[in-house]
Amino acid sequence: MSSDSRAASAPSPALVFEALSAYQRTAALRAAIELDLFRAIGEGPGDVASIARRCSASERGTRILCDYLTVIGLLDKIDGRFHHTPTSAMFLDPRSPASIASTAKFLGNPMLRQPFDSLAEIVRRGRTVLPGQGTVEPENPAWVEFAHSMAPMMAPMAAPLGAIVLEGRRGPLSVLDIAAGHGLFGIEVARQNPEARVVAIDWAAVLEVARVNARKAGVQDRYETKAGSAFEVDYGGPYDIVLLTNFLHHFDPPTCVTLLKKARASLARGGRVAALEFVPNEDRVSPPMAASFSLSMLATTEAGDAYTFSELEAMYRAAGFDEVAGHPVPTGPHTVVVGHAA
Amino acid sequence: MSSDSRAASAPSPALVFEALSAYQRTAALRAAIELDLFRAIGEGPGDVASIARRCSASERGTRILCDYLTVIGLLDKIDGRFHHTPTSAMFLDPRSPASIASTAKFLGNPMLRQPFDSLAEIVRRGRTVLPGQGTVEPENPAWVEFAHSMAPMMAPMAAPLGAIVLEGRRGPLSVLDIAAGHGLFGIEVARQNPEARVVAIDWAAVLEVARVNARKAGVQDRYETKAGSAFEVDYGGPYDIVLLTNFLHHFDPPTCVTLLKKARASLARGGRVAALEFVPNEDRVSPPMAASFSLSMLATTEAGDAYTFSELEAMYRAAGFDEVAGHPVPTGPHTVVVGHAA
Repeated sequence: MSSDSRAASAPSPALVFEALSAYQRTAALRAAIELDLFRAIGEGPGDVASIARRCSASERGTRILCDYLTVIGLLDKIDGRFHHTPTSAMFLDPRSPASIASTAKFLGNPMLRQPFDSLAEIVRRGRTVLPGQGTVEPENPAWVEFAHSMAPMMAPMAAPLGAIVLEGRRGPLSVLDIAAGHGLFGIEVARQNPEARVVAIDWAAVLEVARVNARKAGVQDRYETKAGSAFEVDYGGPYDIVLLTNFLHHFDPPTCVTLLKKARASLARGGRVAALEFVPNEDRVSPPMAASFSLSMLATTEAGDAYTFSELEAMYRAAGFDEVAGHPVPTGPHTVVVGHAA
Repeated sequence: MSSDSRAASAPSPALVFEALSAYQRTAALRAAIELDLFRAIGEGPGDVASIARRCSASERGTRILCDYLTVIGLLDKIDGRFHHTPTSAMFLDPRSPASIASTAKFLGNPMLRQPFDSLAEIVRRGRTVLPGQGTVEPENPAWVEFAHSMAPMMAPMAAPLGAIVLEGRRGPLSVLDIAAGHGLFGIEVARQNPEARVVAIDWAAVLEVARVNARKAGVQDRYETKAGSAFEVDYGGPYDIVLLTNFLHHFDPPTCVTLLKKARASLARGGRVAALEFVPNEDRVSPPMAASFSLSMLATTEAGDAYTFSELEAMYRAAGFDEVAGHPVPTGPHTVVVGHAA
């Protein structure tokens, strides 16, 4: 990117070689998670023979995999023994409550990955090679896997999102959680406000996961579900808060406006719609995670994108919102975009 | 790695997410090469509509792909227009004589890539899931592709390798190039010493590529070929120089010793064997390119590895060499390991 020091530096064939070999990083991390290698590292003592034994793996394979993970910064090697880095200790050891190792399942879902084998064709066509609407085809089972495996990655963003949408508001409150998935965001609002009631919408199989999470959080008595498409289900209402988390990026702007209009129509007076999104800067090439996300939407959807704030603001305004504000989430790469109805 | 600042820094879920998504870098670069996008960038003017037209691609796909390539440092974006970085101008634009875009073909060969889909199983077994000896099975057509597509990546190393093995030596000289591939290394020795004669060994189909390159370099009158396995062909000799480029890493140490003994037996008095290898430091986790290469050998061979200098030195000594020296190649990630016979 223009702010990337590498772009301005001397020409480097290594940069090309690294990109052509980058798929090996994904394979190495996925293999390590599958072998439960990060647990073996955490339990010590970190020599190759012990790790191999715990992982029921060969010593040759274990040594080479651990060396590779060290090269890419996901393990540390000191005097021939392997140890956690701060990142692998917190986010990859299954004994850590913050572990996001399970995200490998959803991010490795063949439906998400296989289109990348046809990326040139996708760029030619301008849309996914998956049939229909791609990942957002009705009742797609991938979203059940999303609800299960991505929850640990989304969990750290729930508390800040709850605070942003509630703005300290107490007393009775009704919340609609559209495309709720794991349900963590609506559930968190219900935890922060003990008088909030939540209605969650998603495919029936996905809502089972959300209901389990609502029970775990002890908010099941204030948690209702409505199965079906966000575009077709009657939302009911009126709601004080409508959540649209990780959803708009799957659709083109006119479809987003349609959805935002429907959400707005379900709002009580003074209510707001809050979307959680990857929002790249207006240059569309920073920050890296939000900007990179567009490629996934190209590969797996018909017309989705990671929208900039000005694009989202225009959609909200076209849907009748008067005031739109972006709140970057300090604990993750996402931004909460809040639209207020007058 | 222990010297990587990231390992010591604060825990970062982004590092995990990046690794799980790294396969997209490979897909994006491969797609761009397939679409001839780097030529379109070089020819300007760099707006999405012009690039899309030149690549016969959609504007949506082109825009998102160019943004992504900018994020990963392979393009630059200024005021909404895309430009080459120094790296993409020199190494990815097909109009550049130094372009290594063709390496995408060999590095993307399914035989090299598919084992990474079974990496956990490979780590369990300690060897490739490919049948037999993996990539070094007899007459493997992948090496014809290697000879064609990897030559531009190897070319910058040929001149330094030639200088290292010749040490300024003039006059009649005989050279054996084992597993010659594209032939560039033996050919370069013949260019640097106009009285050198080269015998190249490889599979018959691969040698056709080497012979074409020898003709292009004008050394065909001093260039002979012997088709067959490096382990079975009668080397002839005696030779002043034996080249073993990118070959030892496919085998286990005893097999390497067998091969080095055979090479040594073909040497004239005072001759030397020179191997071109990825040689990681003794910690096995630096420098990144050489250290990472072990994983490819795990995935695609029965027992190969990227050997450290001390391991290679031990093999040379076991094969009867008296003096062994490592010469890092300044123009690439490789090291030339030279063994002298007394």
